[in-house]
Amino acid sequence: MVRVGVVGGGQLARMMIPASINLGIDLRVFAESKGSSAHLAESTVGDSANMAELLAFAGTVDVVTFDHEHVPLENLRELEKQGTRVFPPPEALALTHDKSLMRAELAHIGIPQPLWTVIAHKNDEELARVGGFPCVAKLPIGGYDGKGVREIHSWDEVQDWLEAGPVLLEELVNFKRELSQLSARRPSGDFLTWPLVETRQEGGVCSVVISPAAGITERQTAEAHDIAQRIATQFSVVGVLAVEMFEDFDGRVLVNELAMRPHNSGHVLTEQSVTSQFEQHLRAVIDMPLGSTALREPVGVMANIFGGAPVEKWFGVSGLFPEVKFHSYQKGYRPGRKAGHLVVTGESVTDSVLLAEQARDALKGEEPWDKHHG
Amino acid sequence: MVRVGVVGGGQLARMMIPASINLGIDLRVFAESKGSSAHLAESTVGDSANMAELLAFAGTVDVVTFDHEHVPLENLRELEKQGTRVFPPPEALALTHDKSLMRAELAHIGIPQPLWTVIAHKNDEELARVGGFPCVAKLPIGGYDGKGVREIHSWDEVQDWLEAGPVLLEELVNFKRELSQLSARRPSGDFLTWPLVETRQEGGVCSVVISPAAGITERQTAEAHDIAQRIATQFSVVGVLAVEMFEDFDGRVLVNELAMRPHNSGHVLTEQSVTSQFEQHLRAVIDMPLGSTALREPVGVMANIFGGAPVEKWFGVSGLFPEVKFHSYQKGYRPGRKAGHLVVTGESVTDSVLLAEQARDALKGEEPWDKHHG
Repeated sequence: MVRVGVVGGGQLARMMIPASINLGIDLRVFAESKGSSAHLAESTVGDSANMAELLAFAGTVDVVTFDHEHVPLENLRELEKQGTRVFPPPEALALTHDKSLMRAELAHIGIPQPLWTVIAHKNDEELARVGGFPCVAKLPIGGYDGKGVREIHSWDEVQDWLEAGPVLLEELVNFKRELSQLSARRPSGDFLTWPLVETRQEGGVCSVVISPAAGITERQTAEAHDIAQRIATQFSVVGVLAVEMFEDFDGRVLVNELAMRPHNSGHVLTEQSVTSQFEQHLRAVIDMPLGSTALREPVGVMANIFGGAPVEKWFGVSGLFPEVKFHSYQKGYRPGRKAGHLVVTGESVTDSVLLAEQARDALKGEEPWDKHHG
Repeated sequence: MVRVGVVGGGQLARMMIPASINLGIDLRVFAESKGSSAHLAESTVGDSANMAELLAFAGTVDVVTFDHEHVPLENLRELEKQGTRVFPPPEALALTHDKSLMRAELAHIGIPQPLWTVIAHKNDEELARVGGFPCVAKLPIGGYDGKGVREIHSWDEVQDWLEAGPVLLEELVNFKRELSQLSARRPSGDFLTWPLVETRQEGGVCSVVISPAAGITERQTAEAHDIAQRIATQFSVVGVLAVEMFEDFDGRVLVNELAMRPHNSGHVLTEQSVTSQFEQHLRAVIDMPLGSTALREPVGVMANIFGGAPVEKWFGVSGLFPEVKFHSYQKGYRPGRKAGHLVVTGESVTDSVLLAEQARDALKGEEPWDKHHG
């Protein structure tokens, strides 16, 4: 049986488990702590910064992949050197580790993106290159879910970051909406996309996803496909690649962020697509032919649940929402934490968004919600 | 977190795992041996005939349910007496343990079924009541998947069984096709059905399921729903109830068999329905509101894989069948054993059946298929 090792025991690893059960893959998890979200899979507790621990885990599997990007690249390169298959490979992952590197590499292959520059100190000349204030400042390394990203209106607002190291400045794009292109590539080169989805953010965090995004033109479909394929091919990405994009008011798309693993914007595909992003990721990393990305239903909507996903409360209110699918991540309560999500499928975007948001509202209440969880 | 205990570690318990992950249920399995099909769930190895072992397992969960019927009823009654919730309850399960009892009880509430009688020895008078030879002889207890069922043309063919105990004789129904009504009931009484499916058998074993069955009239839909609901209500069934039926050439339905758990004829619903039978079973046994039984796609076809489900071979041939979903049960090779299944969804019954059967054929080959499996 093929053994896939996942570094990280979060909800993405958790949601790979059902796919591994269907495919007959032995999924093993290298988790940060006991009782992780993915604890059902055979789990080793360890620190991916500890080379000996990581190497020992890698020795128990046929291929190593990821639940998150927070793994030292030098350790992954060392794993490769010692003969472990690492997918996506460290060269590709490097782009998700360092946003400045990503900008430079994408510029190199002509991918449309916001104006950008990297500064080591206050620099009005460079600021002018991204259109002046207000603009977006990003910590090149370590940010996620809106952390490490600020809209700034003066140098004062980024002074603390500049004292610590270089900062990526980006044009504040006047965008119509945000889109995400989910795709997957296997080592032998096969590449498939799902239809473009719309992501709606709140406070820099994905709140709702609409699949497919409404009113996408053929040209946009082709362009987004081409962008994802060029990135995947150029950097030898293996597994799921999510390309987050801005759509401007002229209908052009500009790449915002990349993720090389199943991504929040693709959760809706578990219900809506013939092949979920979790199954596709596993297929890709074991170099199995990719599954169909056709949609089973015309509309899919995903709504994230923040703070805690109160399982017992869902048991109660679910009678009002028999068609809503609930996904618990089995994580303890923490304000703003992604703790689960809901999916609605149907015919109408308006109705599906309304239903998903009503169901999410019904889950809100007194918090912390569940003393049984860690 | 709600803890559901499943007696039996077969593929039905295995396929409850993904649903338990989504719902945030702690699924625990009482398995016959280590490395069961459901080994990913927290498992206790034990014998359900051993009251002490069963009781110890029951003490670790909030409700006990089943992967199969082969559990001594007296042990389940004792569990109940000691305060364990057992769903479906032993009174209901009794009907699936003893086919003679089932016939008598269903007759009692006026459920349409084949002519039947129970004999302890050769008895031409009783034989005449089921229409004479050829007829169907069944062992009342212990049969499954065509085992314990014979079409007989003379007393000689059932002599061995009669020497061991009573035998159920049934009319050999001249049927047009076989149907299955999947349904679920929760303790508070809510009851839902999925659309009727057609089951195609080979050698007494389900080979292909077509969902929904084609050309079903409103009257048949209502009748099948009524039959399932009356059985579920009358016998306080909790969980999934599958009612297998013959459709005769006059369009009437006659009950053939019952199962009170997820059933092979409902596997297609995992891809096709908003709520899979596995999720519905878990919802029902924890008395959570039932999920929608609406279908996502007009046609679903399931094909069983027999002998062994060669995972590695599927990895190879799946490129020819990107829209076919594969389900491995991770069981060792044994001739005729249900080892996995395939599901195709689409618009056309003919095309979907063809595709499912082609994919199944592509998996055939040298056997035993996989030395790595038990």
